Amino acid sequence: MTQWQDSKATRVEDYLAAEEPLEMRAGQYSLGVTLRTPGDDEELVAGFLFTEGIISRREDMVALRMPGETDTERNLVRVTLDPTVRFASDSAARKFSAGSACGVCGKASIAQLRRRGLRHPEAASRFNPEMLCQLPPILRETQAVFVRTGGLHAAAIFSPTGELLVVREDIGRHNAVDKAIGWALLGGRLPLSGHILLVSGRGGFEIIQKTIAAGIPLLASVSAPSSLAVQLARELGLTLVGFLRGRRFVIYAGEERIAICASVPAGAS
Amino acid sequence: MTQWQDSKATRVEDYLAAEEPLEMRAGQYSLGVTLRTPGDDEELVAGFLFTEGIISRREDMVALRMPGETDTERNLVRVTLDPTVRFASDSAARKFSAGSACGVCGKASIAQLRRRGLRHPEAASRFNPEMLCQLPPILRETQAVFVRTGGLHAAAIFSPTGELLVVREDIGRHNAVDKAIGWALLGGRLPLSGHILLVSGRGGFEIIQKTIAAGIPLLASVSAPSSLAVQLARELGLTLVGFLRGRRFVIYAGEERIAICASVPAGAS
Repeated sequence: MTQWQDSKATRVEDYLAAEEPLEMRAGQYSLGVTLRTPGDDEELVAGFLFTEGIISRREDMVALRMPGETDTERNLVRVTLDPTVRFASDSAARKFSAGSACGVCGKASIAQLRRRGLRHPEAASRFNPEMLCQLPPILRETQAVFVRTGGLHAAAIFSPTGELLVVREDIGRHNAVDKAIGWALLGGRLPLSGHILLVSGRGGFEIIQKTIAAGIPLLASVSAPSSLAVQLARELGLTLVGFLRGRRFVIYAGEERIAICASVPAGAS
Repeated sequence: MTQWQDSKATRVEDYLAAEEPLEMRAGQYSLGVTLRTPGDDEELVAGFLFTEGIISRREDMVALRMPGETDTERNLVRVTLDPTVRFASDSAARKFSAGSACGVCGKASIAQLRRRGLRHPEAASRFNPEMLCQLPPILRETQAVFVRTGGLHAAAIFSPTGELLVVREDIGRHNAVDKAIGWALLGGRLPLSGHILLVSGRGGFEIIQKTIAAGIPLLASVSAPSSLAVQLARELGLTLVGFLRGRRFVIYAGEERIAICASVPAGAS
């Protein structure tokens, strides 16, 4: 590569974030294809299948044949599902496509999640705001030891008291979350009641959905959520925290799970 | 919403980036579904259909019926394609799924793009590095007038001499690019030979593909590209610039299109 700086060009070496497609197949059916950063592929597949509702427990996945060495198998994972698992062969690729008269809208998407039984993650106790403010520095410190590639997305799971359990990184935001949740699934730790998921990117609709699928009651982000994410979090009872930076954050949904002490001025909207 | 800051909780109003699903249908076939920020939907649809290779010119799209007011039609765009347009009904949703013995790999994906005839965008003359450094401030200034929502992704098309032609924003990186390219398609400006596309996010594989489809010879980003993006840019002859910040940038591919004057030290790798 060539670096241009102040009119001077020099040859440089630069680390690039690795991105490669991965296809998941069950028999003859494609379960989905994702562009991901290679590594933790088993967790990625397990997490993807679980959070997308294709499997509902670890045992539904009887076998996983990871990518082989040959060119034709290098980006292919073969999954053997329990014979009792029923899935639409195209459900993963088209989960928003209603295929019916109702069209596609936020409401339809939320109704679809309700049908999967996703709702109201449990939390044994309220979360300490001071503890929440500690989480981004912990994540940053962990990421600092990774090779610098211009920034991968990260997803971290913390215990109810703020202990870091796992961090996973990927060029795709969704993949980082799938890897972290896949780690929990394979380790028999689901549902993650009382736990916290911290993501480096934006908390969008699909991230909310994955968080709820894992039974996590609190999703925190250093960035802002989208309108659809807030709507979904409110309807399904997830606590959603954004702009978690320094000693400040914004609670967009599920405020009752945060132990905020100071009074809210009356009359404010 | 509630803001927590330094142990004090207050009610706040916050602008949220709007995110809603949009489904594109041609007759009974779903061409794809995307989570997008409403606005410029016609450009989004035109750009998506074009950059994904479903249509190859503006005239292939005979009619577009934009979303209606009712709940069932609110997020649905109906497209009437010219009868000569042939497409696999699931091509949009599964463009990486090879469905053959060759599996999925970067090579296969690139071969697929070659078959679509995507290659070597033209540039009449070389780009001035000083001009490139002016582009991010121009984009930032334009974005500053938008409502603050925690940051939408932006894609901007510049003329060969650095004149801003269009900026489009979206919660999704790909959608911002599709909207900008859709603007060009609907205005009869394609191919954008000699032009520059500047994106706020990372230049990944799919962004490269869309850039090349529009005939744009230079893709610039303030962030880093992925490994697959660099590989694709090199093979298809796109000039790829990353880390465009202040008076510095890195050229990852297609260096011959940048008018760099200072000599490159011999012996450097």
